[in-house]
Amino acid sequence: MRRVLLCVAYDGTDYCGWQYQPGVPTVEGRLNQSIEELTGKETAVIGASRTDAGVHALCNMAVFDTESSIPGDRFSFALNTKLPDDIRIVWSKDVDADFHPRHVTCEKTYEYHIYTGGFMPPMKRLYYWHEARPLDIKAMEDAAAHLVGEHDFKSFCSVDTSALTTVRNVKSIRLVQGDNELTVAVTGNGFLYNMVRIIVGTLVWVGLGVRTPENVKRMLEAKDREAAGPTAPAHGLVLAEFRFLD
Amino acid sequence: MRRVLLCVAYDGTDYCGWQYQPGVPTVEGRLNQSIEELTGKETAVIGASRTDAGVHALCNMAVFDTESSIPGDRFSFALNTKLPDDIRIVWSKDVDADFHPRHVTCEKTYEYHIYTGGFMPPMKRLYYWHEARPLDIKAMEDAAAHLVGEHDFKSFCSVDTSALTTVRNVKSIRLVQGDNELTVAVTGNGFLYNMVRIIVGTLVWVGLGVRTPENVKRMLEAKDREAAGPTAPAHGLVLAEFRFLD
Repeated sequence: MRRVLLCVAYDGTDYCGWQYQPGVPTVEGRLNQSIEELTGKETAVIGASRTDAGVHALCNMAVFDTESSIPGDRFSFALNTKLPDDIRIVWSKDVDADFHPRHVTCEKTYEYHIYTGGFMPPMKRLYYWHEARPLDIKAMEDAAAHLVGEHDFKSFCSVDTSALTTVRNVKSIRLVQGDNELTVAVTGNGFLYNMVRIIVGTLVWVGLGVRTPENVKRMLEAKDREAAGPTAPAHGLVLAEFRFLD
Repeated sequence: MRRVLLCVAYDGTDYCGWQYQPGVPTVEGRLNQSIEELTGKETAVIGASRTDAGVHALCNMAVFDTESSIPGDRFSFALNTKLPDDIRIVWSKDVDADFHPRHVTCEKTYEYHIYTGGFMPPMKRLYYWHEARPLDIKAMEDAAAHLVGEHDFKSFCSVDTSALTTVRNVKSIRLVQGDNELTVAVTGNGFLYNMVRIIVGTLVWVGLGVRTPENVKRMLEAKDREAAGPTAPAHGLVLAEFRFLD
């Protein structure tokens, strides 16, 4: 038995998220199905990030075990012939049989895309959140600075979480302005359920003047989901970078 | 009776082109329906560019006549509440009652988007043509130079054309390289049926070395669709700029 690692890109628009659920389209379910079509064996991939319904990825990670003779680096090409074009295997390779994508140290960057122009161009509507009101970028950056570092992010986590601890370490939050566009890039080694979307919703609150940067410090201290801002919509979020650090 | 001009953006993915056809989704049909919902009167817009199935637009133009009391510049907001989010009215304004968007001098720029990386990122698949083989950009630019100016573009026109003359004036063809991306921007005051897509298909032929830049000069002279390259797929094309010159 060998273990193969896949780097998976997908447009999350038409999927009920990563995690397999019977009877609905999921990225994980579609991957299992395509590997079974290729190898003839029932397969259950193990994914690194269980992205929500509508969230996209340029590089989620998944492993599966197989007795197939297909070389590790050829699985990407072979699986892409079986997958729909809204899921692509960017690359594949053999890994140690005990490699587990959620049990190794990694660094992930999520990018959140906001369109700030007056009307939403139709070709961007599936990948951007629309916020046409003026945003105070300096205030958003000041607010973001309070969130960088190791904190208890209980206020920035869906109440549905099953995490054992709500302490996480955010390495950086960068705001990048483009032509009618604002990208919020959040890097860390792990995130709670809805954490990036709640961070973005809160930063936009600050950008609009609903809350001050100083308020955000108190939101962390409150350790209460009610204290933080709204959850930004799923479709603006993309898992953009994924690096294994071990 | 007043005439109102609309600047219309759309994602062409789910439409059988601009032009109204009974029983299938078209941009024109959807516009007529939304104006009727708003004004209560049967309406037939007149469009400037009858884009093909799958082609996108940032700024196609259309006029319609109405007795509504809605100010010209407010129609955009009102119609956007009736339209699906893959069609947006960018702006609207009152124009003279005899203004006809196909009978005034204009300059249009079509952009054709090619993704040149090894695999097609799922989030770009609806808006880019994929060509992973190396392209000789210099050769493509040399070929494009032969097409700029006033020429008989009969070889670069679908045989289905009903145009009275196949002479057109291409003002410029620009190739812009980005990160794994190539944009071909074609500007002119009018284009034949499939002309931009055949120009792009031909330039890619040259980029791949299937034809030389000098061949393209002879393609024009042949005045025969069989002489030119293939028609690039519709989904890479977007009507990007539209300027009335009168």
